[in-house]
Parts: sequence; structure tokens; C-alpha cells
Amino acid sequence: MTDQENLLGSDGIPRFWYNIVPDLPKPPAASLHPATHKPVVADDLKRLFPEALIAQETSTERLIEIPEEIREIYGLWRPTPLHRAKRLEKALDTPAHIYYKYEGVSPSGSHKPNTAVPQAYYNKQAGIKRLAIESGAGQWGCALAFAARLFGIDVTVYMVKGNSQHKPYRRIAMETWGAKVISSPSEETAAGRAVLALDPESPGSLGIAMSEAAEDASNTADTNYALGSVLNHVVMHQTVIGIEAKEQLKALGESPNIVIACCGGGTNFGGLSFPFLADKLKGKEMRAIAVEPELCPTLTKGEFRYDLGDNAGLTPLLMMYTLGHDFMPPGIHAGGMRYHGVSPLVSHLFNEGLIEARSVQQSAVFEAGVMFARCEGIIPAPESAHAIRTVIDEALRCKEQKTQKTILFCLSGHGHFDMPSYDDYLTGNLHDHELPEEQLHAALSKLPHVEFRW
Amino acid sequence: MTDQENLLGSDGIPRFWYNIVPDLPKPPAASLHPATHKPVVADDLKRLFPEALIAQETSTERLIEIPEEIREIYGLWRPTPLHRAKRLEKALDTPAHIYYKYEGVSPSGSHKPNTAVPQAYYNKQAGIKRLAIESGAGQWGCALAFAARLFGIDVTVYMVKGNSQHKPYRRIAMETWGAKVISSPSEETAAGRAVLALDPESPGSLGIAMSEAAEDASNTADTNYALGSVLNHVVMHQTVIGIEAKEQLKALGESPNIVIACCGGGTNFGGLSFPFLADKLKGKEMRAIAVEPELCPTLTKGEFRYDLGDNAGLTPLLMMYTLGHDFMPPGIHAGGMRYHGVSPLVSHLFNEGLIEARSVQQSAVFEAGVMFARCEGIIPAPESAHAIRTVIDEALRCKEQKTQKTILFCLSGHGHFDMPSYDDYLTGNLHDHELPEEQLHAALSKLPHVEFRW
Repeated sequence: MTDQENLLGSDGIPRFWYNIVPDLPKPPAASLHPATHKPVVADDLKRLFPEALIAQETSTERLIEIPEEIREIYGLWRPTPLHRAKRLEKALDTPAHIYYKYEGVSPSGSHKPNTAVPQAYYNKQAGIKRLAIESGAGQWGCALAFAARLFGIDVTVYMVKGNSQHKPYRRIAMETWGAKVISSPSEETAAGRAVLALDPESPGSLGIAMSEAAEDASNTADTNYALGSVLNHVVMHQTVIGIEAKEQLKALGESPNIVIACCGGGTNFGGLSFPFLADKLKGKEMRAIAVEPELCPTLTKGEFRYDLGDNAGLTPLLMMYTLGHDFMPPGIHAGGMRYHGVSPLVSHLFNEGLIEARSVQQSAVFEAGVMFARCEGIIPAPESAHAIRTVIDEALRCKEQKTQKTILFCLSGHGHFDMPSYDDYLTGNLHDHELPEEQLHAALSKLPHVEFRW
Repeated sequence: MTDQENLLGSDGIPRFWYNIVPDLPKPPAASLHPATHKPVVADDLKRLFPEALIAQETSTERLIEIPEEIREIYGLWRPTPLHRAKRLEKALDTPAHIYYKYEGVSPSGSHKPNTAVPQAYYNKQAGIKRLAIESGAGQWGCALAFAARLFGIDVTVYMVKGNSQHKPYRRIAMETWGAKVISSPSEETAAGRAVLALDPESPGSLGIAMSEAAEDASNTADTNYALGSVLNHVVMHQTVIGIEAKEQLKALGESPNIVIACCGGGTNFGGLSFPFLADKLKGKEMRAIAVEPELCPTLTKGEFRYDLGDNAGLTPLLMMYTLGHDFMPPGIHAGGMRYHGVSPLVSHLFNEGLIEARSVQQSAVFEAGVMFARCEGIIPAPESAHAIRTVIDEALRCKEQKTQKTILFCLSGHGHFDMPSYDDYLTGNLHDHELPEEQLHAALSKLPHVEFRW
């Protein structure tokens, strides 16, 4: 994808996903089979994913056509609006132009349906009747419950018990879309029963929930697993965000100097930035900044090496920045950003020096979120507020340096399901913490020993 | 507004609001001063509303230009999408074409900002520094908190204590936008103190909260009051919904045979239907159906007569369908539809036989809401699900009668703040009730005695 290509249909919705792999100066490291440490082949993934998605995962085609059935459902909320944050610019008294791409208009209120719809579609094509997944905060569970229902696919969500009790709204939303939500650890799987045998009151964890979902998917013929982040095909589906934003900005005569997105597993960041990085890789000057929580500083404090994508041993070994697959961040509010690793493609770009990363503290994040809500009217998801924090910092730097820059960021979701976190902030009950060095080292020291070398 | 007029700007956002009054075959009855029973004059309203809104309230101009500052903020979510519910049509196996106008993409998730923005704007123009309002479920409070903040106006919300405790998400959203939310009854006003003196544990009521807001607004020079429903100018602001829908349908070569919306205070129904009724008043055949809860059956079981618009004696006497201003519906989930009366303009049209009304039971409403979520992907607000119930019923009639009709309805908001109500439905804890006849009669018997006659 370059400045010259227009990948949109006449309805303003992309006709193609953009795959950055063939444009990279150096290919990213292959993912490895966790037992053999040999590059993963399609057969290794077939018990979890449909062939079409496996093909996309390893594709070297630059553009992959979006089937019409998917584009039709995208049309429920795409193209998403691109707005200029003029009142925020004024409040900051900055010469910067600040634009944001708003993904919160989707049925589940975040960018996640951009990949949930194609994943449901390709599973349906492959004859799959049910998808089993885990869910932490519930964004991915909501998106997939919504998307799968439209294709008549059942969804079983293993939801970490603590989350499903503390923030029940997303659980209820999944059930409204017809998903079966099971509190994890559960009696339904051997993995769950083993945990309960040791501790009947276990609050569960994402790792346990993943194990339950994977066991369920592996043991049932017409059931697959689905991941809402990290993997290449997931990032690629999210490039609809950047492809649209590029054309929308072009129509306004703008081109961003800085592109900013929050970064948990990396697909929101990749989805916005990759279509712009396509031009950077061809020589155009611009910066892309991935923003992560100070308490889960994968790019900024992690190590670039092979690690498991989960802590259940379900995914291949991925070459990525990681805090160690056992890393458990101290309780933070942006539930979608508690992941120990980050997309291998985003990691590769960071390692090559093509993108930047920054970590921010929670109180500064919510301060930015509230400022944005009061200036621009939309209450951001806590995840998105990470991006806003950095946007504000960059805009203030423009003011200081008296330079006019165009900043684009992804407002990846609304905060309507996250009001308790705002309540904590507004009532002074949200406190910043430092990440203990020993916690970081302990998790990193448990990284798997990987022999494979390129 | 007729078939021939295009009232949209090149950005797809209306340039005018449509005022149905001059198109009516018979003028609606004037509102009366509650003490003198003489038609209300502008001076009577000045202690509560800015002059520009008072002028709109009594205007006989067909089209009122929307100021550019308002259109700019409308641009945050307008034009809203119009979708065809093809998967719902298929599930119902109906020959009907079903279209919906989706207002849930606004920053507060409902249609209410369509009037909150102009109300904040005109109050700002009039030098008002603060708005004091009451809030039940919180839709109006959210919309005004959002809109007023963008114009730098403070908002004080007297929120019924029971609501603010039971469903805290909207309270927190209002506070995120910077509003001061006071649990009502409060110690801040004489009205609140009087209630608390009698019962320190009072859970409050909408009537008490209204009294507190009105007292606050009346006692402070630069503070006004604002109403999110019922009044003529509020309905008129909502006509942006119908004006857009008409052009969007026209572009698809469609014209609706039936227009359906839920009806609480009536502005969502009026906002969608009035631009279409403009054509009906000129002879075009079409039906408009207002849908209300069986437990608050204002149009279907109320009386058409003068009544107070609130139960605090704050508004003028309005000629409208009413259940009596003391009517308290048994607890129902669609918080936005617990109102005892309905817009005088909607009432007038109903009394003239120009529109229809229907009441529906809660369980049938949630059944429709869940069906819509699972077919079309968007979880509707419980209020909007009332409209969907009737849409499904009409579509099934089309199937029975083998007639193809085009049905348009307003999906006035998303249900992301209302998940506990869906939980009650999905877990079998939502039960239908009959409205006791004696409750209806008791409330109607308390209607004020009004001398004025046309």
C-alpha cells in the first residue's frame, strides 16, 4: 500500500487488507513449533484454525482481498469516522493538528470486530460449528460473540472468574449475543478440574482460561479456537483502520507526521500504523509510537526473543518482545493491555528501529482520558486513553518547539463498559505503582530455552 | 419539509430543523400558565429557558436554520447510519424491507444529544453559566453533561438516589464529563431538606429531583433548567433523525409505508416521524406507530386533557395524553419511558387520528431486543427494543398477508449501559405485570381542574 493506491470501495470500506510482510526490508523470524523448535507449518495449526486463516498467517501477498460477505458486515460500522480534535488542540494551545480514528462505533464498542468478523467467516466456510475462546476483560469475547452469531456459529467463552464477577456488563453482552459464558476455572475441562481440585475458590487467570478453551477446541471435531490479538492475520485484519484513515486524511489534504496507538497485543497499533509505515518503508518520513502501560512494559522493558504466546503452551513459540509468559502485571484498569508479549510483526519493526515505544502511568492515562472526554465529548476506553496521553505529550512538545505537526491516533473504543475504572480515578482511588524489578526478572528468567537460530 | 426538499448540507447533516406546527390542519392547543390558566407567554418561561429556545417553543416557522456551531458538533456522530436489517428479514422470512436509523453512535449512546447540543448552545449564547436538571435513568443527564461541557457550561444533576445506586454507570459517565451529580433528595435545596426531614432514608423520586433542580435553577441568576423531552423545541431538534433518514432512503429508492419508534416523552418518535408525516399531511399514504410500555400506556390508556408536565408544578399545563402527573409506573426496565405524559404535538397528532399507538409487554420487548442483537449485531437500548417488537409484529403481518412493505424504525440507542436489564431477562428474572386499573384511575382522578377552553 502506497500513497498512490486507493484500496477503498465506492462505499468507503476497504476492499483489501494490507500485509506488511513483503514490504519489510528483512523478513521477520518464523514462529516455531513449541516441541520441535522447527518453523511452524500449516499442519501444526490445523487443529485450532481454519486453513484460510493459516494461509493468511504466513502469507507474503501484499494485499488480500476482503470477501464481499465480510465487507457487508463491516458496513454496519465502517467506514469509521475520522475527526479532528479541534477543541483539544485549543485547550492545549498547540499548533499541532490532532486527528483521531474512532473505532468505538462498532456493535461491541471497540476495534475487535474488525478481526472477529473475518475469523467467524472463515471458520464458517470451513464448516466449523463452534468456537471456544478465553476472555479476560471481555472485549474479544464480545466481538467474537457478536460476529460468530451473525454466521450462525456458537461461541463458548471461558471467562476468568474474577473478571466476570467484578465487571459483569461484558459477560451479559456476550450472553445477549448468544454466547455461553463459563466461569473459569470450571468443571467442564480437565484443566479446570485440576485447578479446582487444588483450590475450589480459585479466582482463575487468563492462562487457566486459555488452557480450558484450548482443551475444549482440541477435543471437539467441529470446534476451533480463535485469537483476538498478536498473530499476523489478526493484525492484518485490523489494517482496515489505517487504510481508511489514510484516504480520509488525504481527502483533507493532510498526511500524519506522527501516528500513535495503544499497544497491548499490538493489533490495534499495527492496524492503524502499518498502512502508513508502508510509505515510511519506501522513504517517507514519519514516526509511529506504540504506547503501553508502565505496569506491563513489553516493548520498553521486555526482551526480544522466542516465547510462548500464552501461558498454556497453546500457541507456537513467537519471536517477540516479551516480559515472560508467566508475567502477571499488578492489577491495572486497562484490561485489554495485560498481555506479556506483543505481535511478532510489531516486535520486529521495533527491533529494526522503525517504530517507537513509550510506557505511561495509569493516573496520567486517566487524566488524559477525562480531558479528552471533556474537550471532544467521547469517553475513551482506558486502553485508548494510553494513546491520548502520548498524543497530548507530543502536542505539548509541538507547542514548546513551536512546530506544527499532524498527529493521528486510534480511539480504539468507547469507555461505556469501563465506567468503574473512571469512578476509581475520579474518586481518588486509582494509584500508580512502580513495577518491581524483581518481578520483571523473575518472569524473564522463566523464558523457554529455544535452540532454533536463523 | 416535503419529498422535494433536500435539507441536508453537503456533509449529509441537516441544515434545518423541521417544525411540524405550520403544516398541521388544526393548530395544537396552547400551553397554559398553571396559576392563571391563560396561554403561556414568553415571559413566563424566562426564569427557566433562554429566549432563543422559548421562541422555538412557540415558533410557527416550518424550517429553523441550525447554527454552524451546532452542526459542527453534530458532525461528531451525524449523519447517523441507516441500515437495512436483512438478516432480521431473513430470520422472520418476511417480504417486508426493514430499515433502521441508528442513533446509538452518539457520544452518550442515544438520540438525546440531538437536543442537548442546541440547548447547551442557546444557553451559552444567553450567558448562562450552569444548568440544573433532574435525572432518572440518566440518558438525559449524560447527553446534557456531554453537550454542556463542550460549551464550557457547568451541569448540576439531581439524580434519584435509587437509580444512582442501582445503575451507577451513567452517574459515573456524567461525572467524567464534569457534571456534579447530587443524590436526590439532598441537603442542597429546601425541597430536598423537607423530604429528608420526614424520611432521612428516602430513596427519592423523579418528582422530588425535578423540584430540587427547579429550585436550584430559579434561585440562581446565571443558572437555567433544561428538559430533554416533551416540549415542542425538543421534538423539533430531534427531527434531524427523520430528515436524514428520508434522504438516505430516497437514495436507495425507498419510501417507508410504516414508520415506527418507541415513545416515552415522544421526542424520539416525533424526531423520526415528523419529517415523514409532513408528506402524509400533504396526502401521501403512510402509517406512523408510537410504541409504549404496557405498564406506562400514555397514548393507549391515558386521557387527552390539560395536565402538568411534571409532578413538581414546574412546567406549564400541557394539552396532552396523560396518565396523571402523579402516576408512578410499576418498576419497568426501560427507564426512559416511565413518563406519565407525552409531547403535546404527538398527542395532538394522535387525537387527530394521524398516527397510531401500541403498547407492548416487557418480556416481548426483550425477546425482540435479543433477536435483533443476534440477527443484526447491535444490542438495542431497552427503549428502542419497544420499537423493534412492533417492527417484528408488522413484518410478520406482511408475511401472513403476503404484502411487501417498507418499514423504518429508530434504533434510538445502544444497550451498553443497560446490561443488567438484559441479565434479568436472560436469567428469567423479568416478569410481566398487568397495570392495576385502580392505579390508573387513581392517578387520572388527581388531574388538575383546568378552566381554559379554546
